[in-house]
Amino acid sequence: MIMEKGISSVEVLPSKSSQVTAVKVVVKEPETKQTQRGKRVGFVLVHAGAGYHSESKAKEYKHVCKRACQKAIEKLQAGALATDAVTAALIELELARGTMCSFKFSLSEEHFRDSNVQDSPFTNAGMGSNLNLLGEIECDASIMDGKSLNFGAVGALSGIKNPVSVANRLLCEGQKGKLSAGRIPPCFLVGEGAFRWAVDHGIPACPPGIMATRFSLAAFKRNKRKLELAEKVETDLIQLKKRRQSSEKGSRVMCRTCGRPSKANDGSRGGDQIELYSLENDSGTLDTVGAVVVDQEGNVAAAVSSGGLALKHPGRVGQAALYGCGCWAENTGAHTPYSTAVSTSGCGEHLVRTILARECSCALQTEDAHQALLETMQNKFIGSPFLANEDGVLGGVIVLRSCRCSAEPELSQEKPTLLVEFLWSHTTESMCVGYMSAQDGKAKTHISRLPPGAVAGQSVAIEGGVCRLESPES
Amino acid sequence: MIMEKGISSVEVLPSKSSQVTAVKVVVKEPETKQTQRGKRVGFVLVHAGAGYHSESKAKEYKHVCKRACQKAIEKLQAGALATDAVTAALIELELARGTMCSFKFSLSEEHFRDSNVQDSPFTNAGMGSNLNLLGEIECDASIMDGKSLNFGAVGALSGIKNPVSVANRLLCEGQKGKLSAGRIPPCFLVGEGAFRWAVDHGIPACPPGIMATRFSLAAFKRNKRKLELAEKVETDLIQLKKRRQSSEKGSRVMCRTCGRPSKANDGSRGGDQIELYSLENDSGTLDTVGAVVVDQEGNVAAAVSSGGLALKHPGRVGQAALYGCGCWAENTGAHTPYSTAVSTSGCGEHLVRTILARECSCALQTEDAHQALLETMQNKFIGSPFLANEDGVLGGVIVLRSCRCSAEPELSQEKPTLLVEFLWSHTTESMCVGYMSAQDGKAKTHISRLPPGAVAGQSVAIEGGVCRLESPES
Repeated sequence: MIMEKGISSVEVLPSKSSQVTAVKVVVKEPETKQTQRGKRVGFVLVHAGAGYHSESKAKEYKHVCKRACQKAIEKLQAGALATDAVTAALIELELARGTMCSFKFSLSEEHFRDSNVQDSPFTNAGMGSNLNLLGEIECDASIMDGKSLNFGAVGALSGIKNPVSVANRLLCEGQKGKLSAGRIPPCFLVGEGAFRWAVDHGIPACPPGIMATRFSLAAFKRNKRKLELAEKVETDLIQLKKRRQSSEKGSRVMCRTCGRPSKANDGSRGGDQIELYSLENDSGTLDTVGAVVVDQEGNVAAAVSSGGLALKHPGRVGQAALYGCGCWAENTGAHTPYSTAVSTSGCGEHLVRTILARECSCALQTEDAHQALLETMQNKFIGSPFLANEDGVLGGVIVLRSCRCSAEPELSQEKPTLLVEFLWSHTTESMCVGYMSAQDGKAKTHISRLPPGAVAGQSVAIEGGVCRLESPES
Repeated sequence: MIMEKGISSVEVLPSKSSQVTAVKVVVKEPETKQTQRGKRVGFVLVHAGAGYHSESKAKEYKHVCKRACQKAIEKLQAGALATDAVTAALIELELARGTMCSFKFSLSEEHFRDSNVQDSPFTNAGMGSNLNLLGEIECDASIMDGKSLNFGAVGALSGIKNPVSVANRLLCEGQKGKLSAGRIPPCFLVGEGAFRWAVDHGIPACPPGIMATRFSLAAFKRNKRKLELAEKVETDLIQLKKRRQSSEKGSRVMCRTCGRPSKANDGSRGGDQIELYSLENDSGTLDTVGAVVVDQEGNVAAAVSSGGLALKHPGRVGQAALYGCGCWAENTGAHTPYSTAVSTSGCGEHLVRTILARECSCALQTEDAHQALLETMQNKFIGSPFLANEDGVLGGVIVLRSCRCSAEPELSQEKPTLLVEFLWSHTTESMCVGYMSAQDGKAKTHISRLPPGAVAGQSVAIEGGVCRLESPES
């Protein structure tokens, strides 16, 4: 197997829009390694969210990604389905939401190695750390299989430790054909119904009291207090506005953060001022996690899971549950020269409106993957007419595409290898990723950041690498 | 206003696949009418589902469509937003789900004219007539505004008479900008959370006992009995299979409906035999209803609402709630020469996997709307690789596209008119539609059927018409 290192020196590319900055991948010379006899090949790329990853917690984010990669690779090496491998990575990332939250002030590798933290089904493994307006945890997750093109998803699911395992089970059950009396098996279940289905299919329920950690409950209380303050300011602003309208016609309240006329003054909700009381999304960028894999046969799979936003409305479903928005996987076919897999993270509404996962997958069918992804992020995401009214467009994607090719075309005797191109791109401050080939001893991790001066929501960073997977010698 | 009648003589077109049959629209010569001074123009196209509409109930289906068209046109004439007009049509169609169910054996125009049936908030107006596995009603609905490109949706919603009004309210609230503390307003809510949000926003709750009608409860009991029988047969088949496997190696059970080897015999769930005990989806094809409108300014909107399938799993969400799948509306823009609006009906999973509403909208940006829609239904729906394993692909769409043009190009002084092309296409046995221009006295309705010999799930019918809307003389 030849692994081409993807992490790069940074180079700013010229771009169509002056607001868009691209970070180019400089692929290093391949380091040749010996393919191990009989050992299965495969590749995984994971993300621990697009958002802001502080330097102080970088080590922990990377460690989570590393473990998730290892879990997926273990599955691939054992001959598991690509969907099972991607599920294994997601389960690890979902568990980390709880642990990262609980231990975020003192997290060390020892904590992760401690089996009480890792493996105990409930201890500190609250499946998401952001509580909704009612203090409940509700999660979204989805998975897609590139071979069957089947999809499974859950939305606003409570009481299950690993939402992705329910999504994967829905996908599996969907592949078994119709239910009794000709009923079509569901591929997307939400809320209480999703919970019941999971329990009926043997997925253990997690007692509600254990789901939220001490830290997530404390964050919930702080957020509720902030919300009360924000709403008080909003009420005051409306009263102020009414008084000013009668006394000082035409004058405008300026927003303290951006200097523009306040929305409150224009008759809307005063959102700009209120944002000063911004909420803690306590799991940081681990809120949405995802992974993409390709197995030895070139089958791809993708998955995504989200704990949701702090103080979101109960029942709110975001991109992680929605077809085409949270993840996409599509094997090579009559009209698709490449197998592609995509997983997204960021502002749910932005990712939904642009159906970003599927959009990226379609774009990756053109020759230059890097250019295709960059153009998609520029034109179909930041520049999308569907987000024209947004101040900033926030999101990130990991993508993988693979095709069969001869490692050295001049040697026609050569066994065809699987060429895997993998990229990540984000408009957020940062995105944490990890990747690993089945032939590697351990995963590589990286926190990609926008270059200095680039504005989040208006700029794009893009990086990646290439990896060749040779079929094992039998 | 010039109205070109769309209902057509039927002509079979040659098609790429021998299994695909197209019914061509023959547009008749325009009948010129005088534009009424000062009266607003606009156009609405509604559907009462793609499925099977019996001749015996044709009158009732058509009447429902007629009333829905009238409601939308009343709104357009009053200067309402396109989204409010499309919502008005949907509310009428949603109410008819309850009334059609209750009165399906004796329905007459008098029943609909009776204000106790139409307007009483709860009498017989059960919002959906198909009860889920637990005997509850759960509905999906969504709406999209072509001008703002905003979207609102609810999934698995119980206890609200008109789910589309919640979807429309979500869309409206989303347009007001961020919530307090910088929270992003939700565009998609499900289950109990959606219900709470609706009630908090002044939409009245419907007492649960009143939601299900006497007839829907009776159908539920019959369906549950059929399911029990089907499951008994399934168990028997599995036992039979085990016995045969030990005594008659290699023999196969043939499906009585299609003659192919039974799935049960292949180790799966015995779905083919069990389908003989097919369930009553008691509202017939009124289960999913939808509408598309264009207003005087050329703004488009689309909406869809579904009561769901009989005995569906609680929490199952179908295409009617999903972005890109149930409806789509997009005004003309930099990359879109036409304004387009689409609403779908049929097998939810098929419409989701193909993201059919958005796919149709994209295709309609090419010159020949009829050809574009036909090709989409053939290649992106029936022939979709995402549905390659399905025996038949069942769905229907209504589409509308409009652009500004001069009625008579040689007269450059002529006020530009709005050219509206409207089409419906389905792979199901039939689809019931209605359409109306603001200048018409009443709506036209039609039940489109596959031509004799065409196989549902493998054939496409397509029909439609053209309408020119002249700006009113001021």
